[in-house]
Amino acid sequence: MSKVAVLVAGSWGTALAAVLADNGHQVRLWTRNSEQADEINNQRTNVRFLGDVELSQGIEAVTELEAALNGAQAVIFVAPSAAMREVARAAAPYIGRDVLCIHATKGFESGTYNRMTTILAEELDRSESTLVVLSGPSHAEEVVRKQPTTVVVASAEQYHAESAQDLFINSYFRVYTNPDLIGVEVAGAIKNIIALGAGLSDGLSFGDNAKAALITRGLTEIARLGDAMGANMLTFAGLAGVGDLIVTCTSTHSRNWRAGSLLAKGLEVDEVLRQMGMVVEGIRTTRAAYELAKLYDVQMPITEQLYQVLFEGKSPKLAVEALMGRGRTHEIEEVTKAWSKHV
Amino acid sequence: MSKVAVLVAGSWGTALAAVLADNGHQVRLWTRNSEQADEINNQRTNVRFLGDVELSQGIEAVTELEAALNGAQAVIFVAPSAAMREVARAAAPYIGRDVLCIHATKGFESGTYNRMTTILAEELDRSESTLVVLSGPSHAEEVVRKQPTTVVVASAEQYHAESAQDLFINSYFRVYTNPDLIGVEVAGAIKNIIALGAGLSDGLSFGDNAKAALITRGLTEIARLGDAMGANMLTFAGLAGVGDLIVTCTSTHSRNWRAGSLLAKGLEVDEVLRQMGMVVEGIRTTRAAYELAKLYDVQMPITEQLYQVLFEGKSPKLAVEALMGRGRTHEIEEVTKAWSKHV
Repeated sequence: MSKVAVLVAGSWGTALAAVLADNGHQVRLWTRNSEQADEINNQRTNVRFLGDVELSQGIEAVTELEAALNGAQAVIFVAPSAAMREVARAAAPYIGRDVLCIHATKGFESGTYNRMTTILAEELDRSESTLVVLSGPSHAEEVVRKQPTTVVVASAEQYHAESAQDLFINSYFRVYTNPDLIGVEVAGAIKNIIALGAGLSDGLSFGDNAKAALITRGLTEIARLGDAMGANMLTFAGLAGVGDLIVTCTSTHSRNWRAGSLLAKGLEVDEVLRQMGMVVEGIRTTRAAYELAKLYDVQMPITEQLYQVLFEGKSPKLAVEALMGRGRTHEIEEVTKAWSKHV
Repeated sequence: MSKVAVLVAGSWGTALAAVLADNGHQVRLWTRNSEQADEINNQRTNVRFLGDVELSQGIEAVTELEAALNGAQAVIFVAPSAAMREVARAAAPYIGRDVLCIHATKGFESGTYNRMTTILAEELDRSESTLVVLSGPSHAEEVVRKQPTTVVVASAEQYHAESAQDLFINSYFRVYTNPDLIGVEVAGAIKNIIALGAGLSDGLSFGDNAKAALITRGLTEIARLGDAMGANMLTFAGLAGVGDLIVTCTSTHSRNWRAGSLLAKGLEVDEVLRQMGMVVEGIRTTRAAYELAKLYDVQMPITEQLYQVLFEGKSPKLAVEALMGRGRTHEIEEVTKAWSKHV
């Protein structure tokens, strides 16, 4: 059994801490908020993020980073993407060379479009190949209720991926390994765009065919970007890709879906954000994907149309017409190479 | 513009006939039922299969195969899988060498587990490479209402795939090409198993995480079978795979989903079939996939557990425990080869 530090105590961080505690590890869960720490330690709940679910006795909440990290054999970074660099920088002095570092945060750094492991490698001053990402279709609320869940852990080094697998795997939390860290990170970071598009499609009163088309063709263009960034396209058919998309796009509670459906009703982006009163990841992510597509010279027609709807005032109906009216094309260029053998 | 014959006038055959008629082709839609032919020709409806939607004037229903096929430059086979061989045999004498033959039927031949193109190649006495399959996420009801829909046409020969694409593509029916005919056929034939499993998961009151896991891991094992049968795994991430799965698994109206949810409540298979009063494709398909997995020596743990629940009286709860409790494993063996380079 290991000593493990989890940073920070949001819904997903708390759920992962609960899995680790169930596995017998000694878990310290870091939060800056001392009231929240008291609540976790004394009432065994984290009401703001997880309602009234009772948390395992094995979790100890602490408010000092040094106390969380002291003696830890593994650290799980679950800070929001916007806070990852700051948290990693503050934690770095307390993390030794041999400590297993895993992150479970989706998204790119805003502005730079860095992946989370790029940030961690820089701030912890270690090679990306020592790092692990954990991702997959996993509502935190279901995990703390011990409902069957599967995730993937990816690392360039098999040893590190399997160490992370050993740490987390149990009878309700099944963990698969994958060497394609870049694919797992890109899939998790960009899927919100597709949820936004699915909301747009539903908001325009299109049917199941159109929504399935959007999800599938969206996945194909994300995989194409991943391929250009060094990922394996098959990863996008796995838990971090298709799996996560299914939970994101079929839930009408998703913020991204709701933002899309409001846009379809003719609201401006600013008005959508005002009505929702919170961050809509898919809107930020659309800009990131649009910029990355230009940088890596990849065709992403759905992303491009969404970008024009969000930031250039294009009507959603015209965007759909543009997508349907494109020239004849192959489904998956990489598969279509099979034909070129005959030429 | 071409003369096209569509065999037969079920919901999907009629919807495809409507697309072709909208594209200006002269369409003859074959049905053995003269009342149905009269209804289509005089009332412009096919109420039994498509409710009160008004069908295009360009469709002519005929009851004689020879009349349907005479002078046709293309034939679309949309017979149920169980009737495909009989329809193809009856049609063969009227189909010349140069006629473009496309099918849009999902499923294997029962007993032999032949793909539909294998049957067509045998009965029409031509090479499989001259044949085309059309598949994808497409409720017929939405297609006849001209709601945006995407499909894929696959053929070993690019020329034939692109001829099929030209025939069908229009502003609401977007058609992609793919050289991987086997992948498209296997994906379409086996997806019903996963819908059955999704119903089982929901019936056991598991959450979104479990359902997404089942769909994604189910897709992975189907792709693995496809790979062994000569398909490209990426096809399973496309419209005939993921796309079709999304419309099948997220609809609670699906017969397969409903059968799965009844099994979860503890009903025996015979009782489920009695209550539903009709064919449940996913049950037949589970047996086919189980036999194919043995034949091609492919690991399909979800199919195996479903087989045991359906045909060997295993309790669904024990089946889930068996799936969650398997040894540690990699996500996608084919991707994991990246690690073996280092060994």
